[in-house]
Amino acid sequence: MNNTSNKWVIKNGMFAVMSEEKSMLFGHMVIEDGWITYLGEEEPVIEEDTTVVDGNHLFFIPGLVNSHGHAAMSLLRGYGDDLALQVWLQEKMWPMEAKFTSDDVYWGTALSVLEMLKGGTTTFLDMYDRSERVAEVVEQSGMRAVLMRGVIGLCSEEEQKQKLKQSIDFARDWHGQANGRITTMMSPHAPYTCPPAYIEQFVQAAHDLDLPLHTHMSETLAEVQLNVTDYGLRPVAHLEKLGFFTRPALLAHAVHLNDEEIEVLAENKVAISHNPGSNLKLASGVARVPDLLRAGVVVSLGTDGPASNNNLDMFEEMRLAALIHKGVSGDPTAVPALEALKMGTEYGARSVFLNDVGTFAVGMKADITALNVDQPHFLPRTDFISHTIYSASAKDVLHVWVDGKQLIKDGISLTLDEEKIRHEAQSAFEGLLKR
Amino acid sequence: MNNTSNKWVIKNGMFAVMSEEKSMLFGHMVIEDGWITYLGEEEPVIEEDTTVVDGNHLFFIPGLVNSHGHAAMSLLRGYGDDLALQVWLQEKMWPMEAKFTSDDVYWGTALSVLEMLKGGTTTFLDMYDRSERVAEVVEQSGMRAVLMRGVIGLCSEEEQKQKLKQSIDFARDWHGQANGRITTMMSPHAPYTCPPAYIEQFVQAAHDLDLPLHTHMSETLAEVQLNVTDYGLRPVAHLEKLGFFTRPALLAHAVHLNDEEIEVLAENKVAISHNPGSNLKLASGVARVPDLLRAGVVVSLGTDGPASNNNLDMFEEMRLAALIHKGVSGDPTAVPALEALKMGTEYGARSVFLNDVGTFAVGMKADITALNVDQPHFLPRTDFISHTIYSASAKDVLHVWVDGKQLIKDGISLTLDEEKIRHEAQSAFEGLLKR
Repeated sequence: MNNTSNKWVIKNGMFAVMSEEKSMLFGHMVIEDGWITYLGEEEPVIEEDTTVVDGNHLFFIPGLVNSHGHAAMSLLRGYGDDLALQVWLQEKMWPMEAKFTSDDVYWGTALSVLEMLKGGTTTFLDMYDRSERVAEVVEQSGMRAVLMRGVIGLCSEEEQKQKLKQSIDFARDWHGQANGRITTMMSPHAPYTCPPAYIEQFVQAAHDLDLPLHTHMSETLAEVQLNVTDYGLRPVAHLEKLGFFTRPALLAHAVHLNDEEIEVLAENKVAISHNPGSNLKLASGVARVPDLLRAGVVVSLGTDGPASNNNLDMFEEMRLAALIHKGVSGDPTAVPALEALKMGTEYGARSVFLNDVGTFAVGMKADITALNVDQPHFLPRTDFISHTIYSASAKDVLHVWVDGKQLIKDGISLTLDEEKIRHEAQSAFEGLLKR
Repeated sequence: MNNTSNKWVIKNGMFAVMSEEKSMLFGHMVIEDGWITYLGEEEPVIEEDTTVVDGNHLFFIPGLVNSHGHAAMSLLRGYGDDLALQVWLQEKMWPMEAKFTSDDVYWGTALSVLEMLKGGTTTFLDMYDRSERVAEVVEQSGMRAVLMRGVIGLCSEEEQKQKLKQSIDFARDWHGQANGRITTMMSPHAPYTCPPAYIEQFVQAAHDLDLPLHTHMSETLAEVQLNVTDYGLRPVAHLEKLGFFTRPALLAHAVHLNDEEIEVLAENKVAISHNPGSNLKLASGVARVPDLLRAGVVVSLGTDGPASNNNLDMFEEMRLAALIHKGVSGDPTAVPALEALKMGTEYGARSVFLNDVGTFAVGMKADITALNVDQPHFLPRTDFISHTIYSASAKDVLHVWVDGKQLIKDGISLTLDEEKIRHEAQSAFEGLLKR
């Protein structure tokens, strides 16, 4: 409106508006105080001192939402690969993670936030320990995040209590912080790592704090069988019985589901974070994504931790989501490009319960990723949605804005010191090896 | 040795030597007249006027080999996606390809060669029409290529004869051209598009010219069933009967194989070009790669044409090869990172019957790809082979050399005019739409 409002304009850009009748719009976008206030074909009146971004040669998509991960695990990238799950966990991940200091969490998270932002991800969900250090990185970086202290309950009642309290304190203290860019959830780690009564305490806390719930579920077949052996129920019925679905809930993985479970998830409006890269790498299997989408379940995409992926490239997750379900089902129309892009953006936002990001429309926050389309693999200029899903990678991202503020410009971070973070992350890893 | 020989050195580099006992070597490489003459830990004596490449912050892998594709189809990238195979072929690809001019083949191929070189691919196999235009691009670019005029035999005897002659003439005239960077093969398109007697003529021509054979085989289940209906044999037995395996042979796809067929392929030393991205996108299925590798079959990687992939990123194919066979088999040790890298390099070279590229050793041609590892997703510095497979993309390539000559420097092509190629490729596509 005037100079005191923080107003800027993208002129002559191609925007992924993702509606069924028109997936792309060539036009202009006005951003004021972090909100999209105009998007259309007609050129807006631009005052003299308004910042103008030239949209030529760029394709704008809503900032990507990474709906499940453990950012600090970037310190263990490449430390153990191509191993059976239990060997990987017990001999590689857990002994190293037990040595993580608070600073390790900080630098590991910083490395991941840097990689995610440079790759066009504007919101990430993080389930980890020492979440206040994760929040610190989020604050400094300008990124948006949904944070929680993930809790494993295979311990004494005393320790359980202490962890629950940490989890509650963090969720309460940080919800709405960083100018509203941080929201929180309550998160028992998984049905197989948390006794039923303990999970019920998290459900109660989520009610008390009016927050959503997040957990891992049915990542492996063994996990499902164990649940049936231990509790006489498959994981979905088990969680339903514990009241988990009386709160807005997001489940990570959900690879092994039967028809009845898909129905229960749909009825209860439970969201799923599909992690195709991690599920393939750890040989967990292929989730029934086309069936879930058909049933009306909100399915978003997550990278999972960088030790089981091994990068944080959400373009790769979108492409995997579009490719593997075709190949495995034999149906080349399964998960079309536009649906995959929605999984990485619109459905991502919905699955982490944010209603003002994930799409381009007036009244939404300006979380924007701009791709450099002046490259061989974006030619010919046929369908940029298709190119984004089937041809692009994180490295095609040129600019990123979160909350209307530019965080990445020409591929360079404006808020984080990349060289320092790379150095400190490497040192942190070397420190872990020595301890 | 002396100034008259074209000698240069990479100092202090990390090299993917890919031997089982030691996958990486930190040291130095000397290249003379296009050949690797030294690779080791001890620093070589460097004469004053020798060009020195600083290997710091770079990871060197043998240039990638794309063992199956149709480069000119980049003009149809994104023109038809998420469609059933027959709709895609009959309503989208074939009508447009029928309109391709000689110049369309040239500019489409140039666009693909540019993308491949910038992405670290140093050798590609191309099966297409008007192959002399493909060869022209290869000559100009400095890239290495295995070229052939692919022939569909569903036509009159007259036309068959003419196509076979074109195919023979091209193979004879271009084999060994471009300073030996171009080799050729004989290539009937597929058992379902070429009558048996016609395939036998290609086999005879391959004998006469002493060249290998290439064809598509068992890409879809329908194709296998059709072969059984038409000829009473599955495709492997059918091709064996026609003498196809009496020549060195490479088969693209080979998705649907039974145990007996795998045995026959191994016995006859037939190589396979696995095209995971294309097979998933077209919903053809998942090839039995771990079984093929166990049987001793040489399995390499191909992107297939850019209209069914939709990029030419061989890092993506290596990653898919490493990921999908884990996820589908349930075995997290299936196709480890080192094996995937070999599929993209060493096995690639063997599968296109080149014996002086694909690995780093004295006496091999200097086809080299250098990755920029000073990036968040290459940290920590644990296992660069793992990072290359599970974390890297084509956009991480900084420098590329073929035959000892630098073709890509700091991500920029030294031999091709990128801006002109992008412009002409877009124009060519627009011309196709108008005709």
